[in-house]
Amino acid sequence: MSLASASHITVLSPGRYAAEIAPEWDIAGAANGGYLLNMVGRALSDAAGRGQPVSVSAYYLSPGKPGPVEIAAQVLKRGRTLTTAAATLTAGDRALLHVVGSFGDPSAEPGTQEPLYQDADPPDLPAPDECIRLEPKPPYPPNFVGRVDVRLHPDDAGFGRGAPSGRALLRGWFRLRDGEPHDPFISLLASDAFPPTVFNARLPIAWTPTVELTVHVRSSATPEWLACRFITRFVTGETLESDGQLWSPEGALIAQSRQLAIVARKPL
Amino acid sequence: MSLASASHITVLSPGRYAAEIAPEWDIAGAANGGYLLNMVGRALSDAAGRGQPVSVSAYYLSPGKPGPVEIAAQVLKRGRTLTTAAATLTAGDRALLHVVGSFGDPSAEPGTQEPLYQDADPPDLPAPDECIRLEPKPPYPPNFVGRVDVRLHPDDAGFGRGAPSGRALLRGWFRLRDGEPHDPFISLLASDAFPPTVFNARLPIAWTPTVELTVHVRSSATPEWLACRFITRFVTGETLESDGQLWSPEGALIAQSRQLAIVARKPL
Repeated sequence: MSLASASHITVLSPGRYAAEIAPEWDIAGAANGGYLLNMVGRALSDAAGRGQPVSVSAYYLSPGKPGPVEIAAQVLKRGRTLTTAAATLTAGDRALLHVVGSFGDPSAEPGTQEPLYQDADPPDLPAPDECIRLEPKPPYPPNFVGRVDVRLHPDDAGFGRGAPSGRALLRGWFRLRDGEPHDPFISLLASDAFPPTVFNARLPIAWTPTVELTVHVRSSATPEWLACRFITRFVTGETLESDGQLWSPEGALIAQSRQLAIVARKPL
Repeated sequence: MSLASASHITVLSPGRYAAEIAPEWDIAGAANGGYLLNMVGRALSDAAGRGQPVSVSAYYLSPGKPGPVEIAAQVLKRGRTLTTAAATLTAGDRALLHVVGSFGDPSAEPGTQEPLYQDADPPDLPAPDECIRLEPKPPYPPNFVGRVDVRLHPDDAGFGRGAPSGRALLRGWFRLRDGEPHDPFISLLASDAFPPTVFNARLPIAWTPTVELTVHVRSSATPEWLACRFITRFVTGETLESDGQLWSPEGALIAQSRQLAIVARKPL
């Protein structure tokens, strides 16, 4: 199922939306967090009456399972340049996600503006066809992997064959499958679409459920491919962060993200 | 006025709190964002019934002025290890701040746990007395500066005498004034207590009002001094981010922060 279908929202009344968590957008049975954020982001944008996500923060409350959900959104402030709204995604009486976001208007000519200042470089990636495309099968089998087109830098793909690089870093390309076009909400999905960075560190970590994910969308451009870099600098006994940068193939920053996740240890 | 007095909250009814924005915690008339977050963080923690902030995200809606305010908090999810709640801070019928946060229980022995993995170093700072203490007077006159004790690395303090370093980086020490002790909410204040990083870049930027600020508190330790590092990597025509790391003097990570701010240009 395309992202457009899987993230479709229907207006029930002002600020109330119906949607459906699609099957096969899951990781071990729980819907991917970026997919849910993409869906809620659409509802918030509709409630705000502005099409461009600028900053979106999600708190993950319960795992999402396939089936009907509702989104209740409330505008907090209509400003001159930004409108801010909050929404809760619920399945029955179970809250899955609380999201706050500020929305603006897309730039007339996205991607043409030079940055005023930049102190970072895009990831150095081989062409997509020279990277390792993830497929939903062992050793990294989530169904979600089959819904997106993620291609890892060969130097960062070793964890899949038991040869982690030793550094909690994943670089690679992202796009939707089957040539589905990107829209301004793509970064909300792409920011949570890669395997956990710590799979490349030699740590006894089984999984990294997200507590919080914030995405800052820094350009309204929607290139076909996103050049991505996710890095973790600190793993304590309880939490880790994952920092993302999403760039256009031409080297313009599209979005930054950071998530805090729980360190779920491997069973001994 | 101490932070304890300035951020004091009174329970009106379950989930409803009264507080007062204190005078002189402002920057050019608007209450400092970290101060407001510190105050709302206390209310969220009370509503959650858990004392340790783990992740807190604030969206800034309107400037705060001295005077009475109310906080309405709602628990979204009580989990085994974390409780998540959302709150809106209002002055009259004007919403100032919407905050979501996840709260846990403090570690029994904060700061004693070695990180499982670390790929970053604490800032290399001279002793506090060898750094440049900010005072609320020209060239950086906000009243707020007099409420905290911020001491900049001499290499990063040049912007105050018209000699910016050229890099959007500020390193320095933070503590409260007059030996006021720190508590687990100190990082919510300290993450927004330094001057804008871009004052050290040579850019026509007058001010950087915050859109969104997220703080991940990674340790329940509350050292007397926090060794801080704030850096901006991307300034577009419209927004910039500021990334913070707060460390103990012994080199343990206490918190990470990121904010997105509006680029407000200097008048020509």
